[in-house]
Amino acid sequence: MRQVAILGIGQTIIEEQWGKSLREIAGDAAFAAMADARLEKTDGLFVGNMLSSIVAGQNQLGTFIADWVGLWGQEAVKVEAACGSGSAAFRAGLMAVASGEIDSAMVLGVEKMSDQSGRDVTAGLATAADADYEVEQGISFVGINALIMRRYMHEYGWKHIDFAPFSVNSHTNAMYNPYARLQDGLTVEQFEKSAMIASPINLMDASPTGDGAAAIIMVPADQMLLQPGHARIIVAGSASATDTIAVHSRRDPLFLTAAYLSAKRAYEMAGVTKEDIDFFELHDAFSIMAALSLEACGFAERGQGPRLGLDGEITITGRLPICTRGGLKARGHPVGATGMYQIVEVIQQLRGECGPTQVDGAKIGMAQNIGGSGATILTHILKAE
Amino acid sequence: MRQVAILGIGQTIIEEQWGKSLREIAGDAAFAAMADARLEKTDGLFVGNMLSSIVAGQNQLGTFIADWVGLWGQEAVKVEAACGSGSAAFRAGLMAVASGEIDSAMVLGVEKMSDQSGRDVTAGLATAADADYEVEQGISFVGINALIMRRYMHEYGWKHIDFAPFSVNSHTNAMYNPYARLQDGLTVEQFEKSAMIASPINLMDASPTGDGAAAIIMVPADQMLLQPGHARIIVAGSASATDTIAVHSRRDPLFLTAAYLSAKRAYEMAGVTKEDIDFFELHDAFSIMAALSLEACGFAERGQGPRLGLDGEITITGRLPICTRGGLKARGHPVGATGMYQIVEVIQQLRGECGPTQVDGAKIGMAQNIGGSGATILTHILKAE
Repeated sequence: MRQVAILGIGQTIIEEQWGKSLREIAGDAAFAAMADARLEKTDGLFVGNMLSSIVAGQNQLGTFIADWVGLWGQEAVKVEAACGSGSAAFRAGLMAVASGEIDSAMVLGVEKMSDQSGRDVTAGLATAADADYEVEQGISFVGINALIMRRYMHEYGWKHIDFAPFSVNSHTNAMYNPYARLQDGLTVEQFEKSAMIASPINLMDASPTGDGAAAIIMVPADQMLLQPGHARIIVAGSASATDTIAVHSRRDPLFLTAAYLSAKRAYEMAGVTKEDIDFFELHDAFSIMAALSLEACGFAERGQGPRLGLDGEITITGRLPICTRGGLKARGHPVGATGMYQIVEVIQQLRGECGPTQVDGAKIGMAQNIGGSGATILTHILKAE
Repeated sequence: MRQVAILGIGQTIIEEQWGKSLREIAGDAAFAAMADARLEKTDGLFVGNMLSSIVAGQNQLGTFIADWVGLWGQEAVKVEAACGSGSAAFRAGLMAVASGEIDSAMVLGVEKMSDQSGRDVTAGLATAADADYEVEQGISFVGINALIMRRYMHEYGWKHIDFAPFSVNSHTNAMYNPYARLQDGLTVEQFEKSAMIASPINLMDASPTGDGAAAIIMVPADQMLLQPGHARIIVAGSASATDTIAVHSRRDPLFLTAAYLSAKRAYEMAGVTKEDIDFFELHDAFSIMAALSLEACGFAERGQGPRLGLDGEITITGRLPICTRGGLKARGHPVGATGMYQIVEVIQQLRGECGPTQVDGAKIGMAQNIGGSGATILTHILKAE
């Protein structure tokens, strides 16, 4: 495999973009990435998206966006792995460039969840679960996560308020991210008094959806011309792993086996250990998922994920800063685009562009993106050289 | 890039499989491919599918099927390019194995279009067109193809009956394919008297949908242990190209630019010319598409595609046999699975397993799969060594 480097990044703010269509939102991120890369064309376009066929009545999103952003004629495809779609597209683009088949790729994650049609986004999100054995019973996606969180609290003796540091940290970091969905901060009191959605998950355990797109351009590392002042950012580790699609089929519903497997493979590929990771953009769709992700990747003992938050280890100045640009909880969770926001944020840190939430001396960053309730998990490790 | 070879194939009959769920149909093809390959596990699973999120309320189909067929823990992903999804998944699997990142991949195309929910498959198929600029006007997918065919007949002076040989050839070949949707044959008289759908397209210009799955297992060519009596089948050429998503945006709606581009790239990669192609599994979703595909790939002059049918050159004993197992017209068109049926059929020919429709001395076969009205087109060339 050829080593692959990142040439440019682009993203849009995450909000309800009623005035823009799916293709316009995608275009905003694509053109920003092209401008940043000083490149107007790539050999291929790999799009991560989950909901456009349901919400917008639009499939074939690779070609749809290639047409819009001036990549007419080039290869284009959509990759889908529910909320893991963004990083699954990143990995597909990586394989194409690493194999030598193409010499440049744009990877773009996009989701438009607010639309005039009023179609049911909640039903759309439930397509990430098992339609025959979970959704058929009437459970929503939040409901599945609530069952996991309830069991975790019961098993390990945590109280709801012990999860507050995850949400507070994400909201605090998002105050300094102009692309974030929620930039107003959060106190522990606000966290605890928030409205219940599916007990024990309340509004401040859950990430907000939204419309947005994030994109990168990748090229073979040895063909990259460094721009003045930029470090070379390479993709050091990439792995994808799966678990059962239905949570009830798992031997232990409180351990993210796919996170463990994909992190292990990514560490090996990058030639690093968990101690080498300077910061971690994890998938805090719900606060319980932050705890489970930290445990599966080796940063906390089983059942002890919340301890890292309570001990202040996850903040920008802590031992392992997480969600440094706001995470899913406050940057927002435009589902099929989220994985690409994480990758873009890792690159911003490695470039030293994060202002008040810059992690000092960040050289190795990790992103982990989850599809479904832990069913598809991708881990990527990027390095500044 | 490493050279990649095919280790095993599997497929199901295409019909309305009311008694089987999406995962069961996928499993039938996957287990058949595993048995044929004498391999029970692959490093990755790449699934081509277009409609499951709309028809079955199921996304994350890579993991969904990996879980069902015993590939728990492995990498899995879904790739979508409308009716080109099957071969787009094949290309994604090819990149992953060719790059050296994984050592074996299953690629599976699956579609279940008949379902108890009664959701609208016609609306689902229209997601391949431009939702904002085409579908919004009320046109169906057949309607778009009817406009193209009408213009073609006007421009080049063909009558409707001149397209009969395409449909008759596909139906004749399907009589000897036990997996085909329609195995009853077709006469020119039946073709011409068939019910009109969207003038000038009648029922016998159009391919039937259905439920089905087709799968292959691929490995690096140098790691392949040949089974006795089997030729080694390698993937010699692979390319994907795009055109505008909306037909009205094209400079010339009667030329499949993406077919031209992807065929050109595939010929170059395989080191062959069109004269070297022994047979061609093309995408005859509508009879007009057979003509346009032959022209774009260099087998006929512009506007002269129907001539090949009228001169008998497309039959099994002709100069360029096409749709040797029945094509989309008679083998059937389970949309997201179709590209993988074409690949499986090319391999059956190269293995010499096609009985009465075996192409004598077939060594190099080509498959071309179209997403939308020519918007995404993938061309693959396979060789028997």
